[in-house]
Amino acid sequence: MTAPFDFAPLLAPGTPAPAAKWNGFPKYNFIGGHNDAKNVPVQALIDAATAVLKREGATLATYGLNSGPLGYKPLREFLSAKLKDHAGIDCASDEILITSGSMQGLDLINSLLVTKGDTVIIEQETYGGALTKLNKLGANVVGIPLDHEGLRLDVLKQKLEELRQKGIKPKYIYTIPTVQNPTGAIMGEARRAELLKIAAEYGVMIFEDECYSDLIWSGKRPRSLYAMAKGEGVIFIGSFSKSIAPALRVGYIVAKWEILGRILGLKQDAGSGALEQMVLAEFCKQHFADHVPKLNKTLAAKLQTLREALAEQFGTDAEFGDPEGGIYLWIKLPDQVDTTKLAQAALAAGVSLNPGQEWSTNKEYARSRLRLCFANPEPETIRKGVEVLADVCRREFGVPLRSANVEKK
Amino acid sequence: MTAPFDFAPLLAPGTPAPAAKWNGFPKYNFIGGHNDAKNVPVQALIDAATAVLKREGATLATYGLNSGPLGYKPLREFLSAKLKDHAGIDCASDEILITSGSMQGLDLINSLLVTKGDTVIIEQETYGGALTKLNKLGANVVGIPLDHEGLRLDVLKQKLEELRQKGIKPKYIYTIPTVQNPTGAIMGEARRAELLKIAAEYGVMIFEDECYSDLIWSGKRPRSLYAMAKGEGVIFIGSFSKSIAPALRVGYIVAKWEILGRILGLKQDAGSGALEQMVLAEFCKQHFADHVPKLNKTLAAKLQTLREALAEQFGTDAEFGDPEGGIYLWIKLPDQVDTTKLAQAALAAGVSLNPGQEWSTNKEYARSRLRLCFANPEPETIRKGVEVLADVCRREFGVPLRSANVEKK
Repeated sequence: MTAPFDFAPLLAPGTPAPAAKWNGFPKYNFIGGHNDAKNVPVQALIDAATAVLKREGATLATYGLNSGPLGYKPLREFLSAKLKDHAGIDCASDEILITSGSMQGLDLINSLLVTKGDTVIIEQETYGGALTKLNKLGANVVGIPLDHEGLRLDVLKQKLEELRQKGIKPKYIYTIPTVQNPTGAIMGEARRAELLKIAAEYGVMIFEDECYSDLIWSGKRPRSLYAMAKGEGVIFIGSFSKSIAPALRVGYIVAKWEILGRILGLKQDAGSGALEQMVLAEFCKQHFADHVPKLNKTLAAKLQTLREALAEQFGTDAEFGDPEGGIYLWIKLPDQVDTTKLAQAALAAGVSLNPGQEWSTNKEYARSRLRLCFANPEPETIRKGVEVLADVCRREFGVPLRSANVEKK
Repeated sequence: MTAPFDFAPLLAPGTPAPAAKWNGFPKYNFIGGHNDAKNVPVQALIDAATAVLKREGATLATYGLNSGPLGYKPLREFLSAKLKDHAGIDCASDEILITSGSMQGLDLINSLLVTKGDTVIIEQETYGGALTKLNKLGANVVGIPLDHEGLRLDVLKQKLEELRQKGIKPKYIYTIPTVQNPTGAIMGEARRAELLKIAAEYGVMIFEDECYSDLIWSGKRPRSLYAMAKGEGVIFIGSFSKSIAPALRVGYIVAKWEILGRILGLKQDAGSGALEQMVLAEFCKQHFADHVPKLNKTLAAKLQTLREALAEQFGTDAEFGDPEGGIYLWIKLPDQVDTTKLAQAALAAGVSLNPGQEWSTNKEYARSRLRLCFANPEPETIRKGVEVLADVCRREFGVPLRSANVEKK
């Protein structure tokens, strides 16, 4: 009975390829939402864990602590206050569902609304994970191009009209209006108001992803779409991954109870991890307001390090903006550079990057674009990593033309 | 734009009913896998959190810490050693995938193997959550009756033969061989060997759920099916929910890499919560071996309290065994009692219970049976709760006949 068992014929159709074995992080790690290690508030997290466990540790004996399936109530109460202050959102703690990361939020909302063949509207350049999930569901994904403020509403309106002519109502418009991923764009309030007007006109729901909205250098941000619409026709998701630590898998959904109750009915996981919620709530009540600006200062400096290194190594061959927040930079290389191929060659040299095509519905447009995340590597690693990347790029594609080493000496 | 938005037409087909608002736990809580609150090792968890965060807190800045997507390596190493000692399993830490509770394990394994119309074999009485998930997937669920040692192999063999005649190969045989849920049965090694032989003969995979296997009064248990088959044709899941605390959502899958790599490819959640994994690993290395016997002593005493209370209140109208482990008792009431109706009436009186039909594929057999979980309520609450339950049962169904109050005085 210990002969090898062939399980392959048992696999459900469409099962993805097996994962590769993990061999550690690359030396120059410019992918994923990893964050700055020195800004993890270790001692404050220890203090928070100690205090909350001493006070409420015995409640770990029950699923959902004493808070029920929406998640640890003090964390929802903190969020209710924070969302009011930061994003202008009026929501009760019972209009917030804690999720195991915002990725579970994406899954739950898709599970509620999207089935094979459904149409959804997203930003042409968007979070790769959202794109992967929608493709796996067999959704018809319509990408709308972006400008410096995000979603181009002229194209959106035209697409909605085209779809209406065909009798198609999209399930939602997925947008990251505040520090867009990957472009870093922040949508102003006037455009937000116009977007809400168009969505209402076509009766389409908005799915607002605010995972990065705490990371704004100025600390000031427009009101969220959810706030401006008073929650009508908008589902909102957020996360602590970017503002505190990504390995803590804690995200949240904000929605009116009519929708949230439905989403909760789909969340068949016996609750999200309680210890992370307890420690976060305890930490955030005291320290969130101070922690985030400190983190942003580090991130803003790392962004400038990355921009300088790119300018130094690539010269005018790399085009990029100066985003006002976030942890990534969206970069255009010369047309002859296929960043999917570049990513493979770079990885062999220890540099990981997100090729544009994984982050866009417009494969041609994204072909020579890439995303670099700057939050995790230390400044010296950023500089060295960009140097290695430029070398690989020169070897594989003949650009950048100038040799950085010569220029620097 | 703040007019009410009607999202109902957007729902995906088959969306379950909205969740009800949570109103706190019932006074006499005999459902769910809740555990004994006094046995939550609060101070040791604080010490563990302090030590591990001090040493490795900065690694929270990266998804997956420094351990990759399988989960925190020291926890997998602890499990590898524990599974060897307790269950006889030889597995490397890279053959273990940490999941967000064992429910995610169920979901991932189903997602790998089961699609609408597929046949799966399960124990006739089984974990209600597993049953719900399979029904939602549209699987053809074949229940095999149980005896005092679990799965009846004569019926299993007959069913497999019938299916073979029809050209149907089941995707797996789902079994909880060690402290079966809900019957508490423990399958002996001889029957395990025979089960493996039959499974191999029909080329069917075994899905072994060991979520309760730490909770055995004697501390001694048969080797796991996974161990006996050297992992060939068996997928194994386990959990810390029952041995440490259910609100910590940490489970695990053990499988050969050919299967585990596939499952990992499906786990698109950016990892399970890191803090819980870190704290558990730190705690378990030092305290697991001492903690579990202490917990078992409490649970064994609570079981006897429940059995005594049932005997006192129901007399011979309640039939039940004396399980050698676990946190629940499976009870037969007189035929005229429909436990689904009893559950509703009891809840109104503050007593929650699991009606048998939710825990069985044989609705007629399970109609007058129920599951009571005894781990969470204190002994006095168990006694009082059973008294209230007997009152409700008498009022609704005329049994138990004798009045406990009279007998006791």
